[in-house]
Amino acid sequence: MQHRTEPVGDRANRSEKPMVGIVMGSDSDLPVMKEVLQVLESFDIPAEITVASAHRSPRRVAEYVRSANERGLKVIIAGAGGAAHLAGVLAAETNLPVIGVPIGSSPLGGWDALLATVQMPAGVPVATMAVGTAGAKNAAILAAQMLALTDAELQGRLRRHKEELADKVADRAKKVQEQLR
Amino acid sequence: MQHRTEPVGDRANRSEKPMVGIVMGSDSDLPVMKEVLQVLESFDIPAEITVASAHRSPRRVAEYVRSANERGLKVIIAGAGGAAHLAGVLAAETNLPVIGVPIGSSPLGGWDALLATVQMPAGVPVATMAVGTAGAKNAAILAAQMLALTDAELQGRLRRHKEELADKVADRAKKVQEQLR
Amino acid sequence: MQHRTEPVGDRANRSEKPMVGIVMGSDSDLPVMKEVLQVLESFDIPAEITVASAHRSPRRVAEYVRSANERGLKVIIAGAGGAAHLAGVLAAETNLPVIGVPIGSSPLGGWDALLATVQMPAGVPVATMAVGTAGAKNAAILAAQMLALTDAELQGRLRRHKEELADKVADRAKKVQEQLR
Amino acid sequence: MQHRTEPVGDRANRSEKPMVGIVMGSDSDLPVMKEVLQVLESFDIPAEITVASAHRSPRRVAEYVRSANERGLKVIIAGAGGAAHLAGVLAAETNLPVIGVPIGSSPLGGWDALLATVQMPAGVPVATMAVGTAGAKNAAILAAQMLALTDAELQGRLRRHKEELADKVADRAKKVQEQLR
Amino acid sequence: MQHRTEPVGDRANRSEKPMVGIVMGSDSDLPVMKEVLQVLESFDIPAEITVASAHRSPRRVAEYVRSANERGLKVIIAGAGGAAHLAGVLAAETNLPVIGVPIGSSPLGGWDALLATVQMPAGVPVATMAVGTAGAKNAAILAAQMLALTDAELQGRLRRHKEELADKVADRAKKVQEQLR
Amino acid sequence: MQHRTEPVGDRANRSEKPMVGIVMGSDSDLPVMKEVLQVLESFDIPAEITVASAHRSPRRVAEYVRSANERGLKVIIAGAGGAAHLAGVLAAETNLPVIGVPIGSSPLGGWDALLATVQMPAGVPVATMAVGTAGAKNAAILAAQMLALTDAELQGRLRRHKEELADKVADRAKKVQEQLR
Amino acid sequence: MQHRTEPVGDRANRSEKPMVGIVMGSDSDLPVMKEVLQVLESFDIPAEITVASAHRSPRRVAEYVRSANERGLKVIIAGAGGAAHLAGVLAAETNLPVIGVPIGSSPLGGWDALLATVQMPAGVPVATMAVGTAGAKNAAILAAQMLALTDAELQGRLRRHKEELADKVADRAKKVQEQLR
Amino acid sequence: MQHRTEPVGDRANRSEKPMVGIVMGSDSDLPVMKEVLQVLESFDIPAEITVASAHRSPRRVAEYVRSANERGLKVIIAGAGGAAHLAGVLAAETNLPVIGVPIGSSPLGGWDALLATVQMPAGVPVATMAVGTAGAKNAAILAAQMLALTDAELQGRLRRHKEELADKVADRAKKVQEQLR
Repeated sequence: MQHRTEPVGDRANRSEKPMVGIVMGSDSDLPVMKEVLQVLESFDIPAEITVASAHRSPRRVAEYVRSANERGLKVIIAGAGGAAHLAGVLAAETNLPVIGVPIGSSPLGGWDALLATVQMPAGVPVATMAVGTAGAKNAAILAAQMLALTDAELQGRLRRHKEELADKVADRAKKVQEQLR
Repeated sequence: MQHRTEPVGDRANRSEKPMVGIVMGSDSDLPVMKEVLQVLESFDIPAEITVASAHRSPRRVAEYVRSANERGLKVIIAGAGGAAHLAGVLAAETNLPVIGVPIGSSPLGGWDALLATVQMPAGVPVATMAVGTAGAKNAAILAAQMLALTDAELQGRLRRHKEELADKVADRAKKVQEQLR
Repeated sequence: MQHRTEPVGDRANRSEKPMVGIVMGSDSDLPVMKEVLQVLESFDIPAEITVASAHRSPRRVAEYVRSANERGLKVIIAGAGGAAHLAGVLAAETNLPVIGVPIGSSPLGGWDALLATVQMPAGVPVATMAVGTAGAKNAAILAAQMLALTDAELQGRLRRHKEELADKVADRAKKVQEQLR
Repeated sequence: MQHRTEPVGDRANRSEKPMVGIVMGSDSDLPVMKEVLQVLESFDIPAEITVASAHRSPRRVAEYVRSANERGLKVIIAGAGGAAHLAGVLAAETNLPVIGVPIGSSPLGGWDALLATVQMPAGVPVATMAVGTAGAKNAAILAAQMLALTDAELQGRLRRHKEELADKVADRAKKVQEQLR
Repeated sequence: MQHRTEPVGDRANRSEKPMVGIVMGSDSDLPVMKEVLQVLESFDIPAEITVASAHRSPRRVAEYVRSANERGLKVIIAGAGGAAHLAGVLAAETNLPVIGVPIGSSPLGGWDALLATVQMPAGVPVATMAVGTAGAKNAAILAAQMLALTDAELQGRLRRHKEELADKVADRAKKVQEQLR
Repeated sequence: MQHRTEPVGDRANRSEKPMVGIVMGSDSDLPVMKEVLQVLESFDIPAEITVASAHRSPRRVAEYVRSANERGLKVIIAGAGGAAHLAGVLAAETNLPVIGVPIGSSPLGGWDALLATVQMPAGVPVATMAVGTAGAKNAAILAAQMLALTDAELQGRLRRHKEELADKVADRAKKVQEQLR
Repeated sequence: MQHRTEPVGDRANRSEKPMVGIVMGSDSDLPVMKEVLQVLESFDIPAEITVASAHRSPRRVAEYVRSANERGLKVIIAGAGGAAHLAGVLAAETNLPVIGVPIGSSPLGGWDALLATVQMPAGVPVATMAVGTAGAKNAAILAAQMLALTDAELQGRLRRHKEELADKVADRAKKVQEQLR
Repeated sequence: MQHRTEPVGDRANRSEKPMVGIVMGSDSDLPVMKEVLQVLESFDIPAEITVASAHRSPRRVAEYVRSANERGLKVIIAGAGGAAHLAGVLAAETNLPVIGVPIGSSPLGGWDALLATVQMPAGVPVATMAVGTAGAKNAAILAAQMLALTDAELQGRLRRHKEELADKVADRAKKVQEQLR
């Protein structure tokens, strides 16, 4: 594994230079956000993952986004709950596409995280995903779709993924049939 | 303007080959969705715009998405209100990134369009924007950010746009001061 | 059981030609959607059940709805959670009555599925039921009511069902009395 | 026009025996509910319309539903706002399919009417439509779809309607193009 | 216990003529609604309790409300979940005060029952309580307050109840102190 | 008109001793709350009306509720918007039945007032009405129903009111027929 | 007026050193946020007001909060709409109390701004006020209450303000009486 | 521990004169509200805690707030669920800053407590925190920030707390890295 000295932006997937940076507001978001890592891995996209809170460690977030630009990241994925400002704060500081994953960790069950992530003002978009695990997986796929715009091999992997999705549905349909027989 | 024979996917911005396709579920969404066109134009990104309803003209949507892949579109932006399925239906049929703009045109004021756009199942992401005009503008900027991943000139335009956003805020702050003096 | 070669639209109830087609967006919806099957069975209405996702397997859905028209189905019942587009996508492609069952499987607890199912645009109705099990049972009864419009025997079964509902309430009232005595 | 003596269930469309009964909870619902009448008329389906409140005139509602069964109505469409009980009360007393149109007339903007219409208990379905005008139009189309199950001519009209929906979208797309040129 | 022949409106508290009638839409509401009975008992107010569903047993409800008027009930308390129409249907048929207890038994967690109970149209009030157990207890106290308007002894019991509420708070405050010491 | 020296609890309806006290949190609630007065007047129930804010004039509210008990009021009706505490604060200090009318005067459109009025803890009920004008009218009718428990003449007026409600519906039904002919 | 060279944090109230800094996310928030200024003025508290967007001008916000600490501000009041991150971003960078005013400027009517302001994670509080004008006024009063902790004169002004609130209610009550007479 | 005779406002933290008073509406709120106490303790701020319900023990609340003023409390923190009036009732009677913690103890999951706490009318602010534990912790920190306005030592502790927050995030980031390696 490549030697790293930066305090933020630690590597997760493989030894190549990371293309996608995953940030979560709290380590309690890990069970949801590691889905992002796994899906990126399945697409063979090098990624890094770290924890940085827009509210509890704003400097860490600022450093992260600056280094993200310098280190050549292509896409940033941010997951947070409650008044989920992380994706918005990152988007304010970079022109890389920022994907937001609202996490339902507060007593209001994800409504707060969804609205705080998606309702961005004109000028600063956050590509918002569904609340929770489904959103985390989709963040990885959307990142893959962006990177595939100029990567024919990745396009092929995405095509296979889409076929697998459909095949899996057909498989499940069969199992349902067998269960009900 | 370039001659076009296809029934769907008509051109809007300039004569070059469109890179972004804008689809709206109803022509009543035009006041919101033409903001997308204007922002793309300001970034000099060739785009096309059309109307296609996932529910009232599903074949038109299917044709559109197939031709989108063939015609070399890079990003699709879909705006719809109510049970807003348009972005999801397009995302189901392409691996291009699909950006969804929820429109608050039903009596439930945009909550329906937001949830129907953002809560996509694992496997098929829609990059969801804010409800209404802010979301429409941001859809164009997100598309620009995706295209800028491999277009240094566009990166420059995005940097200037970010500076202009900040400058405009400073300008407005001055005007507020003058108003209150 | 009748031999079937089609990949979609597998039979569930008895060997006669199915009159009602039940589709669910995911096999995880089965615990809710098998209630539809059981109620249809209690009305002696031949039915089929399968899995087909509007987003993960759009072609399967398209094939299903086309074959539904050809195979002489009379009513389609679709259950889905999250950005529940399944019923709407089916309704877009057929003039058979489509009944939608919103399923509370996402972190937003059914609000997303309800709005994505019920808020259909003018022109393409989905007969929306309550979220979850109650809605699944009612989908079957509504299908029976539609079929009973020209089936006097089924009308009789519906009358008996209504009487049984009332009798069961009276029974339960008695049990409550005994419990409290 | 056919002479009528019943106090409830007055005729609206043509002189034939009505097949669809439209009931609204208040005459203030007329601007929404007359859309039902117009769409039914466009399908050449004889209908009647009246006002009957589940809360302010329960006996009128009870008489209506009894006479509806006797007079050979095939489908009942009920529109109401607030704690919209009308459709549910009708469904409790008949085995005809009951279609509910929630109307956004209270200060809570239709959420109350939607939930009070759709969240029916197991045993007594109400086929719920979207809030407001879109829902009113769709109630008529759903009724047509039910009646078309045994009426080939009506099936033809529904097919043409679906084609017109698609054609109108294509037309609007053209107009949008012309507007933007 | 007094002999009863009526099919509905069975007695629960003591042998005297019941003053308060408690109705619930389903026997599954009993864990919530028996709180009403217990609080009425603590005020020494004779009451009866039964199950009657506005949707599954409308005639039972109609009979109940007619007999309620004849048998001299003073207040009716109705608890129901989902599209909770029970209180409204009773209020439509009587001029006795009707108190509604919304029960959070559907997947939408009580929002549907609350709105379907409280948003009654002008002319037909339902005195709506909080969702669930707190509401059930308060329904009994509100009934006691109404009956106390002309019953000085009951007024005394209500005064003592209010004092006990305050005493219990003071007691709990002490226990909290002891716990934290 | 009877001379009054008290600063709070001013008379509105006729010269007799008021039986119902109407309090509103702000004079901006008057357009809604004068509906209460008019309906009480139509039932010939003497009432008084005043303004007292639980938050801006807590002492006035405390004085009011104490004097209400002394002056022989039978029912208190409280209307307020936003974090509508008025009804709850009154209910905390009296054993008279307190009826709450939520008013949709804040930017959150009545949801805040509804929840702050209805979700009272066990021990202190507030009989909550619908948001806005319908709720205001119903507050008066519920008060009349309470007072009618021991007033046969008032019972007669309530019976006539119920008949008028039904007659008005029938009238409106006729007018709708004439309009559509 | 004192000369100022800083680009952010311009003065509004009088020439003394500002104690309260008011920031709004957009100049379109001015109609709401100038209420803060007026109430502070009525308490004779020197204040400054400016525009700075957490998303469109993050550096301006960062500079502002740094200079706020240096220039001796005591309280910061932030008003913003949509995914309202402004107050949270300020609170992340200072230990001064930060008061947040959610503004209902998005199509979701203030729910987004409320949740994005109030649902802050443990460690970084934002003192959240009501949505809109009421919240803006209260932000000023809360700031006054904080400053009054060590300012006896200001305590006196707050006492008078509380009395005036109560007096105004009594006045309005009189006017309502006169209107209704 | 210092001897205390007052029935309300019992001490919790250390023997010094309490600066912060914590009140909760019910002893069932203790698991949430003791977080306030612990955080205050970590800042070495003397505090007291008690139970007092705005609805079940209004006099206790009134006594508390009066004694709070006399005993020299600087800040009041109130936690309550449901129609959470406690903070508002306290704020109505004092000019001390009142901080409200909404608690999600009702079947509506905290939405009621949030709106009933935050939507205060102009004139009477409540500094509202997030629902539940995060809000409880933040109430303590906000109180510390207010007290630190004139306490340089406390300012130091707040600075260290902010640093610790950031350090903890960095620590957690490392652990996440180790977990994923």
